[in-house]
Amino acid sequence: MSTPSTPTLGVGMIGYAFMGRAHSQAWRNVRSYFDAPATPRLVAVAGRNEAAARDTADRFGWAGVETEWRRLLERDDIDIIDICTPGDTHAEIAVAALEAGKHVLCEKPLANSVDEAEAMVRAAEAARERGVRSMVGFTYRRVPAIAYARQLVAEGRLGRILHVRGAYLQDWLVDPESPLTWRLQKERAGSGALGDVGAHIVDLAQFVTGETLTGVSALTETFVRERPVADPASLGTGGISATAASNGAATTGPVTVDDAAVLVSRLSGGALATFEATRFANGRKNAIRLEVNGTDGSLAFDFEDMNVLHVFDGRAASRDAGFTRVLVTEASHPYVAAWWPPGHVLGYEHGFTHQAVDLLTAIAEGTDPRPTFSDGLQVQRILSAVEASAERSGSWTPVDGARVSTSALS
Amino acid sequence: MSTPSTPTLGVGMIGYAFMGRAHSQAWRNVRSYFDAPATPRLVAVAGRNEAAARDTADRFGWAGVETEWRRLLERDDIDIIDICTPGDTHAEIAVAALEAGKHVLCEKPLANSVDEAEAMVRAAEAARERGVRSMVGFTYRRVPAIAYARQLVAEGRLGRILHVRGAYLQDWLVDPESPLTWRLQKERAGSGALGDVGAHIVDLAQFVTGETLTGVSALTETFVRERPVADPASLGTGGISATAASNGAATTGPVTVDDAAVLVSRLSGGALATFEATRFANGRKNAIRLEVNGTDGSLAFDFEDMNVLHVFDGRAASRDAGFTRVLVTEASHPYVAAWWPPGHVLGYEHGFTHQAVDLLTAIAEGTDPRPTFSDGLQVQRILSAVEASAERSGSWTPVDGARVSTSALS
Amino acid sequence: MSTPSTPTLGVGMIGYAFMGRAHSQAWRNVRSYFDAPATPRLVAVAGRNEAAARDTADRFGWAGVETEWRRLLERDDIDIIDICTPGDTHAEIAVAALEAGKHVLCEKPLANSVDEAEAMVRAAEAARERGVRSMVGFTYRRVPAIAYARQLVAEGRLGRILHVRGAYLQDWLVDPESPLTWRLQKERAGSGALGDVGAHIVDLAQFVTGETLTGVSALTETFVRERPVADPASLGTGGISATAASNGAATTGPVTVDDAAVLVSRLSGGALATFEATRFANGRKNAIRLEVNGTDGSLAFDFEDMNVLHVFDGRAASRDAGFTRVLVTEASHPYVAAWWPPGHVLGYEHGFTHQAVDLLTAIAEGTDPRPTFSDGLQVQRILSAVEASAERSGSWTPVDGARVSTSALS
Amino acid sequence: MSTPSTPTLGVGMIGYAFMGRAHSQAWRNVRSYFDAPATPRLVAVAGRNEAAARDTADRFGWAGVETEWRRLLERDDIDIIDICTPGDTHAEIAVAALEAGKHVLCEKPLANSVDEAEAMVRAAEAARERGVRSMVGFTYRRVPAIAYARQLVAEGRLGRILHVRGAYLQDWLVDPESPLTWRLQKERAGSGALGDVGAHIVDLAQFVTGETLTGVSALTETFVRERPVADPASLGTGGISATAASNGAATTGPVTVDDAAVLVSRLSGGALATFEATRFANGRKNAIRLEVNGTDGSLAFDFEDMNVLHVFDGRAASRDAGFTRVLVTEASHPYVAAWWPPGHVLGYEHGFTHQAVDLLTAIAEGTDPRPTFSDGLQVQRILSAVEASAERSGSWTPVDGARVSTSALS
Repeated sequence: MSTPSTPTLGVGMIGYAFMGRAHSQAWRNVRSYFDAPATPRLVAVAGRNEAAARDTADRFGWAGVETEWRRLLERDDIDIIDICTPGDTHAEIAVAALEAGKHVLCEKPLANSVDEAEAMVRAAEAARERGVRSMVGFTYRRVPAIAYARQLVAEGRLGRILHVRGAYLQDWLVDPESPLTWRLQKERAGSGALGDVGAHIVDLAQFVTGETLTGVSALTETFVRERPVADPASLGTGGISATAASNGAATTGPVTVDDAAVLVSRLSGGALATFEATRFANGRKNAIRLEVNGTDGSLAFDFEDMNVLHVFDGRAASRDAGFTRVLVTEASHPYVAAWWPPGHVLGYEHGFTHQAVDLLTAIAEGTDPRPTFSDGLQVQRILSAVEASAERSGSWTPVDGARVSTSALS
Repeated sequence: MSTPSTPTLGVGMIGYAFMGRAHSQAWRNVRSYFDAPATPRLVAVAGRNEAAARDTADRFGWAGVETEWRRLLERDDIDIIDICTPGDTHAEIAVAALEAGKHVLCEKPLANSVDEAEAMVRAAEAARERGVRSMVGFTYRRVPAIAYARQLVAEGRLGRILHVRGAYLQDWLVDPESPLTWRLQKERAGSGALGDVGAHIVDLAQFVTGETLTGVSALTETFVRERPVADPASLGTGGISATAASNGAATTGPVTVDDAAVLVSRLSGGALATFEATRFANGRKNAIRLEVNGTDGSLAFDFEDMNVLHVFDGRAASRDAGFTRVLVTEASHPYVAAWWPPGHVLGYEHGFTHQAVDLLTAIAEGTDPRPTFSDGLQVQRILSAVEASAERSGSWTPVDGARVSTSALS
Repeated sequence: MSTPSTPTLGVGMIGYAFMGRAHSQAWRNVRSYFDAPATPRLVAVAGRNEAAARDTADRFGWAGVETEWRRLLERDDIDIIDICTPGDTHAEIAVAALEAGKHVLCEKPLANSVDEAEAMVRAAEAARERGVRSMVGFTYRRVPAIAYARQLVAEGRLGRILHVRGAYLQDWLVDPESPLTWRLQKERAGSGALGDVGAHIVDLAQFVTGETLTGVSALTETFVRERPVADPASLGTGGISATAASNGAATTGPVTVDDAAVLVSRLSGGALATFEATRFANGRKNAIRLEVNGTDGSLAFDFEDMNVLHVFDGRAASRDAGFTRVLVTEASHPYVAAWWPPGHVLGYEHGFTHQAVDLLTAIAEGTDPRPTFSDGLQVQRILSAVEASAERSGSWTPVDGARVSTSALS
Repeated sequence: MSTPSTPTLGVGMIGYAFMGRAHSQAWRNVRSYFDAPATPRLVAVAGRNEAAARDTADRFGWAGVETEWRRLLERDDIDIIDICTPGDTHAEIAVAALEAGKHVLCEKPLANSVDEAEAMVRAAEAARERGVRSMVGFTYRRVPAIAYARQLVAEGRLGRILHVRGAYLQDWLVDPESPLTWRLQKERAGSGALGDVGAHIVDLAQFVTGETLTGVSALTETFVRERPVADPASLGTGGISATAASNGAATTGPVTVDDAAVLVSRLSGGALATFEATRFANGRKNAIRLEVNGTDGSLAFDFEDMNVLHVFDGRAASRDAGFTRVLVTEASHPYVAAWWPPGHVLGYEHGFTHQAVDLLTAIAEGTDPRPTFSDGLQVQRILSAVEASAERSGSWTPVDGARVSTSALS
C-alpha cells in the first residue's frame, strides 16, 4: 500500500484496445497487490476514436480522455507515457514523449524498422542523461515461470547453453475467411507473425539465456495472400477479433506481411537454436514455447500452461533425474508473493502488472528498467535479419553487432 | 460499460483478508470487462482491525471503512452485503443482513453447522418474498472449464453418470511446524479440510452432474494434533500464511479439526463416487480434481491446469477416440468472451468476477442467483453426514432428503 | 546368457489365452535378455481345447501340448507349473501341483474365496518345507516404475505415508451390448472388477507402501445386469475381446459380479486411502493409477504412461520443488539394464519377463519369491472385506489380521 | 499362426549388437503374434566376433553363426539378409546380397554417402526385376501412433500441410567423459546425430505428410571435440553403452561427426518446417517429436509417450475443439490387434516386429515393401544437403529432385 511518502506518478496511455485494456488493468492493480515505491495515477487515455477511448477510460478508472496524443505530452500531471498503438506510430510518439521529459513504456515490437528503432534508442539515451526512463513491453518476461527460468540460468544451474528451441504458435488466421486487419498490413504492423509473436519468442530466448542471436537462416511464408476486408474503417482500429462483414459485398485485400517464419540460429555462447512464429498452427492458441538445454540441466515452458516450468537437473542421479514440473505459484517465486496462496494460479494479464511495478520501481529508484530500448533494437535487428535471410532463400545473415563463440566444451 | 440506464448497487464487504481481496478485485473488475445490467459501487469494507480494513479499502478503491459490520446494514447506500469472514460468523451476519433488506453473498461453507445453515435458508426464503437475493460463494463453479463441464453434462453429452471421483488436495499443513490458526479450530472454522476444501469438491461434483450425494461412508484424520501458536492474536485474524513466532517461547495448541477426509458415496442417479479432501497431499498445491464418467462420455479437470477441460466422447470411433484437451479460452466458452483472445489464459481470481457478474445480473433481473443458500445447506448436510459417518468408523450415513436410484442400465 | 553350469527348469503352463500368451513371451524372453541363474525350458501347454492350446504352443515354441492339466504334474521334465486359468480352478491345480513337488506360479487373484486361498497357503507352506516355491502373479509389481516406487518408499524418501489413492480404470464393459463371458460370472471369476482389477491396485498399494489395509468401507455396483450371450461355449474360453453373436437370436444372461467397486480404507501406518476398480470409466483403457503422499514426499503413477513415475521431494526448496517426471528407462532402474538404451520404452508384457526372472532366481537360489501365496491370501481377505462391507451398505469391515496405527505425527 | 501352406523364409542377420537384438526379437515374434503369409526361420547370425555373435544367436534362437558375412549369401537356406551393421558396410553387403538373389532389409541410414546409396538403389532396382525385394529399416514408421498419423493425413483429415516441426532429442553424449565409439567417427558412422537420429525424424516427417523436403538451411555443431578412448578395440564393435576405461591411462581421440544439427526447410506442398537432431538435449532420452499442422487439423507425437497420438480436428466447434489424446492401443489401430487388449501399451521393440511382418508379407505377395532403398536414398540426399548447407553457414541448399509448391491457400 502506498504510504504518505510514496510518490505518485501520472500515467497517460495512448491506445485503448486489446493492449490498452491489459495495461489499464496493470496500472490499476499495482497498488492493490504490490508495495511499489511509487504509485500510478491513471490520468488519461488518448485515442482518435473518442467514444472508444472513453469506454476504456470508464471501464478502468482513467480520469480523462484525449483525442490527440500530443496533448498528453503537454500535461504536467502526466509523468509516464504508455504507448499501446500499432508499431508504425511508436517511433514518433516515443521520441516526442522522451523529448518532452516523459518516461516511456512502449509496446513491442519497438518499431517497424531498424532505422526507427535506432532513432528511438538515441532519444532514450539522450533522455536518460536527464533521468528520463524508457522500457519496451516484452511483457512475457514477467510471467513468473519465465522470470524463474532466468534466475536458474543466471545461477548457472543449466551450465553452458547448448540448445534453444523457441516457438510462438497461434492459429487465428488459419481460416482464410478471417478478415484483413491492420495486423496484416506491412505499413501498419511492420511484419506479420514475425514481429507480432516472433519478437516475443526471440526476446524470451535472449532474456532467459542471457545470450544473443548472432545470425539467422530463415524462411517466411504468406499462406493466405488475399483476405476479405471486414470494414475499411476497421483497418485503423486494431483488435484481432474483428469479424468479416456479413453482407455479400465484402471485398478482399492483399495480405502484405508474413503468416509464418522459421529460422535456425547460433547464440553468442555457441548454442544452436530453432525458432518458429506462426498464426497457422491449427489448435495452438497462444503456445509460447521455450526449451533450453545446457550442459548441466534443461528448461521447458509453454504459455498454454503458464504457471508451470519444467526443470531438468542434469547433476541428479540417473535413477532420480527427470523434468520437474514446478508450479510457479510459491511465495518464493518472482512476483508471486503479492498475489494468492500456492496453487492459486495466475493468468495472462498478471505479467502486465509486474511490468508496471518494475517500471515504477526503476523510476522511483533512478535505475534503468529492462528491457531497454536497446534491447528492443537488438530484437528489431534480428527481425530485420530474418527478413533479409528469407528474401535470399534462407542465406545466413549475421545480426549486427553479434558474435559467435567457437569454443567447444572440450 | 455501464450505460446511463444501468443501475448502480452499493456493496459493503465484511472481512478484508485473503477472501476480501479476491472479492474486491471482482467487484472492481465487473464494469471493466462485463456489460452487466447493474454496476457495483465499492462503498465500504468492515473489519474490527481498522488499519487492516483500511489497507484493503485503499488498495482496491473502497470508499470507506467500518469497524462494526452492523453499520453496513444500516447504510442506505449499500444494497449488497458480501460476507468474507470465518464460518462461525456467517449465520448471524447473513440473517441480519437479509432482515435488513440487503442482498447477501456469503462465502462458503454456508455455515458451521446444519442448524445455522437451516436458519440462513429460512431467512433467505423470507427475504426472497421481498425481492431480496442471496447466494453462497462456491466460486469454482465459475471457473470457465467447470461451467463448460456443466454445459456438457446438461446437454446429455456424457449420458447417464456412472462414476465421479473428486479430490481437493493441498499440502500447506504437511509441515508439523506450520502454526495454529483459526482455520484449525473447530469453533471458528467448523471443520478442517472437510469444510474448507471438501465443501468445494462436493459442490462441484453436484453442480457438474446435476445430481446429489445420497449418503456417505467416510473416514477423517488429524495427522498433526498439536501445533505451535504463532501469536494468540493471530487466531482471530485468519489468513493461511501466518508464520510461527520466531522467539523460542512459542507454545502449542490443539488442532481441533480434521486434516483430511475420504469418502465413498452414491449419487442420486446411481453413480458411485469417491471424494478426498486434504491439506497433507505433499506436492499438491491447489489440486481440485474432478472426473466424471458416463455411459456416453467422460470429463476430467484439475485446477492446477485450470484453463483446461479434458473431454472424452464415447461415441467417437475407437480409432479416433480419446480425451480431448479443450483449452477453455475461446469466446464460445462461458464467461471468456469478456476477457482476452484465445490462449491468453485466466487465473484464480477471475472466477470471483464471474460470480459478481452473475449476482448483479440476478438482482437486476429479479431472478434467484445460484448457488442458493439451499444449495449451501445441502452441502452442509453432506459435511455433517461425513462427520457422523467418520465418528462411527465409516458407517453408511444417508444425507437428509436424498434418494438413491437403483435402476440398472439394462 | 545361460552358461554351461546354468540349470534348466522345465515349465508346464495351464491356460493358453490372453494370460497364457503373456506368460509364454516371458518364459521365452528370459534367456534373451537376462542372465538368470536358471534357464526355463518351455515343455508343454495344457488346455482342454487342444487346437487352441497347440496354436499357442506353436506360436511361442512350447515343445508339447496336454489336454489334461494333471498330466503336467506327472511329468519329470517339468519343474514349474504356471497357472493361467480362471480363478475357480486355481486352488485345485495349485494344491495338486505343490503336492506333486512342482514350483507354482499362479495368476491373480490367488483364488475365488478366502477359504480356497487359505488352503493354497497351507499347501504352499507345506511345500516350502520341501524346498518347493510358490508365487502369485501380481505382475504389475514388476513394471520398472512400480519397482522404483517401492525402492523410494523403502529408502524412506516419502517419510511416513499419509495418503494413498488407487484406481484401476477400464471401460470395456460400458457398452451394454458387450457380451457375457466367464469374467462376468461369479462362479468362474469369483468377482468382477473387484477381483480382476481391484486386486491389482490393492496389491500395488500394499507393495509400494509396505503397509496393509486394515479395514474398508466399500460400495459396489452392477450397472448392466443382463448381457447378450455371445456363444454359450465362449463362457468357458476366456478372453476379454469376445464379440456378441451377430445373428439376431442372441439370448441374454445375468451378470453376477460387480461392475465397479469403491472403497475407503486406513493403512496399517495410519494413512487414509481411497480405491476404485471399474470397467465403466469411459475413455480409460488400462489406467492403473497409484498416488502416495508422505510427510517427506509423494509419488504418482498411471499405467497408461507406464514408463514414467512422478516423484515429489518435499525436502526441496519451495522454489525448486515439483513432481519430477522420471522416465524409468535408465540402466539404474529395476530390470531396465537388460533391455534397451534410455528412452526406448518398455511395454505391457515386459513385466511378465521380470516376474519369470525373479521366480527362476528364487528357485535357483533357494529363497522365497514374492509375492507369496500369503500375500495373495491377504489381498483375498481385502476383497472379501470389500464384499462384506458392500453388502452392509458400506459399513466399516476390518480386514482379518490387520491393525490400525493411531499415532499422530505430533 | 503358420498354416501348412505358409512358406518359410530363412533369415541371415549380419550384426548382433543393439540392432541385432532388436531384429532378432522381431523375427521371433512374427509368428507368435501375427498371421503373416510367410514365416521366418532364424538361420544364422554373422559377426566377426564369433563369441558375441553366438551369444546373440543363443539368446534368440538363431540356428547358427557365421564369422564371415559373405557365407550367408552363399547359403541356400537363407532367403533374407538382414543388415544390422554400421553404415560404412551397408552398401557392400546390400549390393552383394541383392546380386546373390537375397531379399534385403538394411538398417538406416541406408548408406554413409549419396554415392553409396545410389549404387544400392541401382542394385535394388535390378534385383526387383528378378523379384528380389529390398527395404530400409526406418522402423519408427511402424510405431502404431505413427502409422495412425499417416492414415489421418492420407485421409485428408489435416487438409493441406502448413507446418512441420520435427526433433529427435537424446542426451547420452552430454557428458564430455562419455567415450569415443564408432558412432562418433565419420568413417564408420558417416555422420553423427544427423544420420543416426536426424535421418529418422526426416523420414518420419516425409512418411506422415506424404511430402518431401525440397531444400534446407542448416547448421551443425560438434560440442565435444575430443573424447576419451574407452578401448581401441571397442571402436569396432558398436553399442552406445560403452563405458570409459577405468584405468588412468585412457587416451583421447577426436570426434569427427556432428553432435547436433538444426535446419529449416520447405516441403513439396509448401509447408514450412524445422528439424533438430541432437544427443545433447539434457533430460531428453529418446524424444522423437513430430508435429504437423494443416488447414483442417494437426498432429503431435513424442516417442517418450509412444502409445499416444495427439490429434486436433480443426473442423470441430471452437467450444469443443482441442487436441485429442488418442491412446493408440485399440484393435482398430495399425498393427495393434495382434497384441494385447486396449490400454496394454506396446514398447520400443514392437515396431521391429511390425517391420518384419510387413517385409514378409511383401515378399510373399510379390509387392515392394516400403520404405524402399529409393526412400532411403532420398533421405540420404537430405542429409547430404544438410551437410552442404552447414558447410556454407546455413545457405539454402536444394535437395536433388525436389520441387517447391508456391501456390497460396487463396
